[in-house]
Amino acid sequence: MRLYSASRAPNPRRVSMFMAEKGIAGIEVVQVDLGRGEHRSDDFVGKNPLAQVPVLELDDGRTLSETRAICTYLEGLHPQPNLMGEGFEERAFIEMMDRRCELQLFLRIANCVRHTHPGLAMLEQPQFGAFGVSQGDKVRATARWLDGVLAGQPYVAGERFTIADITAFCALEFARGLMKFRPGQEGMDHLQAWRDRMAERPSAGAI
Amino acid sequence: MRLYSASRAPNPRRVSMFMAEKGIAGIEVVQVDLGRGEHRSDDFVGKNPLAQVPVLELDDGRTLSETRAICTYLEGLHPQPNLMGEGFEERAFIEMMDRRCELQLFLRIANCVRHTHPGLAMLEQPQFGAFGVSQGDKVRATARWLDGVLAGQPYVAGERFTIADITAFCALEFARGLMKFRPGQEGMDHLQAWRDRMAERPSAGAI
Repeated sequence: MRLYSASRAPNPRRVSMFMAEKGIAGIEVVQVDLGRGEHRSDDFVGKNPLAQVPVLELDDGRTLSETRAICTYLEGLHPQPNLMGEGFEERAFIEMMDRRCELQLFLRIANCVRHTHPGLAMLEQPQFGAFGVSQGDKVRATARWLDGVLAGQPYVAGERFTIADITAFCALEFARGLMKFRPGQEGMDHLQAWRDRMAERPSAGAI
Repeated sequence: MRLYSASRAPNPRRVSMFMAEKGIAGIEVVQVDLGRGEHRSDDFVGKNPLAQVPVLELDDGRTLSETRAICTYLEGLHPQPNLMGEGFEERAFIEMMDRRCELQLFLRIANCVRHTHPGLAMLEQPQFGAFGVSQGDKVRATARWLDGVLAGQPYVAGERFTIADITAFCALEFARGLMKFRPGQEGMDHLQAWRDRMAERPSAGAI
């Protein structure tokens, strides 16, 4: 298998962290240079017609894209430690939290950054600055909700580390770099403490 | 179990269609009036702090939200007919197509409609019209990609009907009503033919 990744992009980081938590080794990683537009090359678009990283190329040549779908596949190949739920009930509740973190936090951070940051104009055309700023406000609303969740439980989906922690952590790391967002500086102490615990995991360095 | 739904909203429709395909009956459906802001009531926010439909209330009182997570749960309870994949490999490839339809089609249609339609100002504040129009252009780009997919296979994820067809169909129905988007009028004949076949399924009427 071969993973097409991009070392500073947040979605590939989710897969890298997921693999590190499971101790998955031996998958060749090919870096795609987004800044040079390599994701739009004929060769790469042949692997993912939507021109996005990450992409997992299987040994039979088929290509699987979409971050969470790649994680579903890797979880099947490497079931332990379980990160997406044992049985359908737990899977559903973890998926709920994972989706909330992805749709309400991760995507809004991406929208904010892509529409406001001059350096990301090569990824987002046209940019709508006022929309991006407004998305930043919604990021903070979601972060406050998550701060409340983490006041009552140690991990995003409950009592143990799951894929939802990876999604939320990679989202916040993206916001930390490009929105200069620090939950603790805005009174979200539970979210900051959780973020700092996540940053200590060895998998947090897998980029 | 009890399902909190909203009869004209596209996400609840995805769950209704999923249930109809499986022949699931006996779940009490409670209509939430979005126009009157019932989704923001204390009672409803107690069920989903993010104030969104649909929500599935389990018999033990726990509440599960997020459309696809609800489907994961219902697929576990009612495995046949399978709509989300048998085994992790098929599950991953169906999830890939479902996510593409959700993130690149459904969410962009929602963004277009919510930011351009005066009647949806109660759901989206502030509205950014130019952003919404631009999302409409991206909807068409994704629709053209999907038209190409459906030139080569009968269903969105391959040879059989899956949750990805439901996501794409409910997205296009949303666009049909509020964006007046007809794929066939824009040269996307495969997509139009697939849409018309989907509309003939009894589940298409489950709203």
